[in-house]
Amino acid sequence: MTDALTTTSASPVLTRTDELDAALGPSTAAARALRSIPDAVRAGYLDAVADALDAEKASLVAIAGRETHLDDARLTGEVARTTGQLRLLADVVREGSYLEAVLDAAAPDATPPRPDLRRVLVPLGTVVNFSASNFPFAFSVAGGDTAAAWAAGCPVIVKAHSGHRELSRRTAEIVTTALTAAGAPGGMFQLAEGREVGVALVAHPAVRAGSFTGSVAGGRALFDIAAGRPDPIPFYGELGSVNPVVIAPGAARRRLADLATGLAGSFTLGAGQFCTKPGIVFVPAGTDLAEATAAAVGDAAPAELLTPSIANAFRDGWAELGALDGVEVVTAATAGVDGVTPGIVRVAAATFVAEPRLREEIFGPATLLVEYDGDDDLLAALETLEGNLTGTVHADPDDDVERIVEVLRERVGRLLFGGWPTGVAVTWSQQHGGPWPATTSVFTSVGATSLRRFQRPVAYQSAPEHVLPAALRDGNPLGIPRRVDGVLTLPAETARTAGVQR
Amino acid sequence: MTDALTTTSASPVLTRTDELDAALGPSTAAARALRSIPDAVRAGYLDAVADALDAEKASLVAIAGRETHLDDARLTGEVARTTGQLRLLADVVREGSYLEAVLDAAAPDATPPRPDLRRVLVPLGTVVNFSASNFPFAFSVAGGDTAAAWAAGCPVIVKAHSGHRELSRRTAEIVTTALTAAGAPGGMFQLAEGREVGVALVAHPAVRAGSFTGSVAGGRALFDIAAGRPDPIPFYGELGSVNPVVIAPGAARRRLADLATGLAGSFTLGAGQFCTKPGIVFVPAGTDLAEATAAAVGDAAPAELLTPSIANAFRDGWAELGALDGVEVVTAATAGVDGVTPGIVRVAAATFVAEPRLREEIFGPATLLVEYDGDDDLLAALETLEGNLTGTVHADPDDDVERIVEVLRERVGRLLFGGWPTGVAVTWSQQHGGPWPATTSVFTSVGATSLRRFQRPVAYQSAPEHVLPAALRDGNPLGIPRRVDGVLTLPAETARTAGVQR
Repeated sequence: MTDALTTTSASPVLTRTDELDAALGPSTAAARALRSIPDAVRAGYLDAVADALDAEKASLVAIAGRETHLDDARLTGEVARTTGQLRLLADVVREGSYLEAVLDAAAPDATPPRPDLRRVLVPLGTVVNFSASNFPFAFSVAGGDTAAAWAAGCPVIVKAHSGHRELSRRTAEIVTTALTAAGAPGGMFQLAEGREVGVALVAHPAVRAGSFTGSVAGGRALFDIAAGRPDPIPFYGELGSVNPVVIAPGAARRRLADLATGLAGSFTLGAGQFCTKPGIVFVPAGTDLAEATAAAVGDAAPAELLTPSIANAFRDGWAELGALDGVEVVTAATAGVDGVTPGIVRVAAATFVAEPRLREEIFGPATLLVEYDGDDDLLAALETLEGNLTGTVHADPDDDVERIVEVLRERVGRLLFGGWPTGVAVTWSQQHGGPWPATTSVFTSVGATSLRRFQRPVAYQSAPEHVLPAALRDGNPLGIPRRVDGVLTLPAETARTAGVQR
Repeated sequence: MTDALTTTSASPVLTRTDELDAALGPSTAAARALRSIPDAVRAGYLDAVADALDAEKASLVAIAGRETHLDDARLTGEVARTTGQLRLLADVVREGSYLEAVLDAAAPDATPPRPDLRRVLVPLGTVVNFSASNFPFAFSVAGGDTAAAWAAGCPVIVKAHSGHRELSRRTAEIVTTALTAAGAPGGMFQLAEGREVGVALVAHPAVRAGSFTGSVAGGRALFDIAAGRPDPIPFYGELGSVNPVVIAPGAARRRLADLATGLAGSFTLGAGQFCTKPGIVFVPAGTDLAEATAAAVGDAAPAELLTPSIANAFRDGWAELGALDGVEVVTAATAGVDGVTPGIVRVAAATFVAEPRLREEIFGPATLLVEYDGDDDLLAALETLEGNLTGTVHADPDDDVERIVEVLRERVGRLLFGGWPTGVAVTWSQQHGGPWPATTSVFTSVGATSLRRFQRPVAYQSAPEHVLPAALRDGNPLGIPRRVDGVLTLPAETARTAGVQR
């Protein structure tokens, strides 16, 4: 990392709170400019950034590897995911449903008479995004939150994560150069560094929303600032999740080896540093999933965690866990200068119910097996769970999991049947979120509908045609899906596929 | 009002905080029961309540008139609006787009492979709604917030407004009887009274969201409680709004008499007790809109406001306004034992910019005319405005209002071209909301999309068919619009109208 980067014209970096007023001028100007730039052009900005990042993939992965200790294959895949999500959100913009255009004709003879009314979603304004430690690309400078805010039409200021500072600066340079070449407004993107600057951004009057991926403590502190402003703003935090997995008796009986291999792979993936890591696994008492999983993990080489503070937190969290009453250590995690090795512990469901500290997330390669004795025991344990990003059920056809699914569904954003929660497909249907503390919101931070976080509705009443945004004009010039007089109406080319039902 | 009502079996009333745990049991049970009740059946509950209220219209209006001093015509119209919005939201449920069903097929050959993923919106759980003083039907016990929460599948506890307690209890009885007759789960609706109970409900762990229509101070206090919980919940407040109206020079020159009549009617409608009352009107300097409006108001008979505390606040607010430097009283409001009469004041735009107290809402029949001298003067004044529910522009074809519209659009939820903001059509396209302090959210509290406040997404990954909710099953058994593999797809009967474009 060279300090000279802070002075490149391509990408100045905000590092002081007294720079914010000056920096937010261009953001506000960009918000204004973006309003009159057609959607298709704005979608092109996202594609341009994706192309630029793909072109620099090798050099970016090299920097990321040095800073995060994640391996090249993972990082290369993450760049592809990042550029893929920029392109998906560009497609979402072009498709146009994200505008939620609704038109109702005037009804002068109704009681009371109704005016012509047309509703559309508009961008909120400047958004501040806090990068995550564990996804240096996909939840970082040009990650999902940034892509979603841009797609919605909002300028973005990214608060870089200190764990990958050089990568953040280099990514910012590439983003800025690509946006400039594409003709985007100058203030559409800026990079900021430092906790104080991040806090000041959330409190700044010109910032209209925030998003965050990280710890419960950090996210809660920022959420409280956003909610405590004289004018509260939405703050979308993706915080803690233990991602419960339930293994039903039939599945445990017939597929234990596969389950052990799958669990071993999932909780140690990326050294356990995924927000979707399966942290708590409910297994029937008397099965030896713990031992089988330990065998599947084998003699893992130590893995260096993302940052020293994350390594310290893992070591402390593990030590605390092992010291709790009733906790049996099946495989002891180790933490040394070379890194950490995975750990597995086991408790009885009754112990789990009685001890809230067992339900806290440990970030890193550790998992807790909870042994249950029958459905009631299991359900009592599941009902103590807070909100989670995911919940997983492994069941065979003879396992009756209806009540289990019901209890889990109330507590999660994504419900898996088989498979493992790590791995989040970026698609139209994805939901990455969940009740507190998984997130602070009723939205997803991944996938097509993540844009909605950065939009608000505006209705135009009796507006002359030339004042209306293109999405609301007569004749549907954008060719987008719209609801007209209560009927959802597809543009001609899409309507041709309307008979296809799955 | 008879105290015996608190003990009717049809509708017990929660009046003590120590009753809440017991009362929330049935709410939680109802939330669970509602999950397995088909959408069409739930929609029928809303229709049943609408029918029951219509059948009791005359007696309800009589009680409301006594308690609120609003006239019969207004109250009768408000009952019709209330039952109309229950029926509209029932239609929204039956139409099914509100579920935002999205299905993506598995792509086992993709890199990385993608699982079958299907997303739907699910109800949040028990909602507490705070009734408004000024809409004893439409924003009260069976009002829009209640209808929206029910439509979304959430049980509701309504905190009654003390200004119309007997009406609230009687409405609750009718609602409870209708829901019971329709076979709805017992805990789907409850009535609560008293500030302490309301506060305790917002803080209660079993409550999953709140909504509120009222003052900035009251709404902010509840918002802070909701945001400050160990597990923050969404709190949708509709708070203050001054509803700016801009009269452009051409319109002022040619249509002054009409504008004066319109303004006089709008700011005195319902004794000025609408959240959409035009509270600040920007007029070109030198026009005599103020005098013409005063003439149009004429010698109004005193109107009794909703409650003594609202009357006191109006009297105090008016006195404070008149005492500010640079404020010219055109027509003095009066406040006596018989009620209040309308008031009109006038200031120069420069005074308006310099004095923040001029931008505060006065609830009741008062309006402030701000005289501007050219576009820059006007824009400077508009830029001091906070968020509003509405903004209105009166312009003739030769008035260039592009910049004015731009500045207003950033600050409002509904933008009117001609007409007056009082009167809110309950339609698919309506937007009743706006930036702080108009609301605390990025949603509407009126119209078809008001349901979204009480929903959150859940994705099902690789789920067996029998586990999926009907909205996500193969073959689209509900016959609802769904997005399938990225393509918005209409059910067959709706698709036939897909060629129609407006």
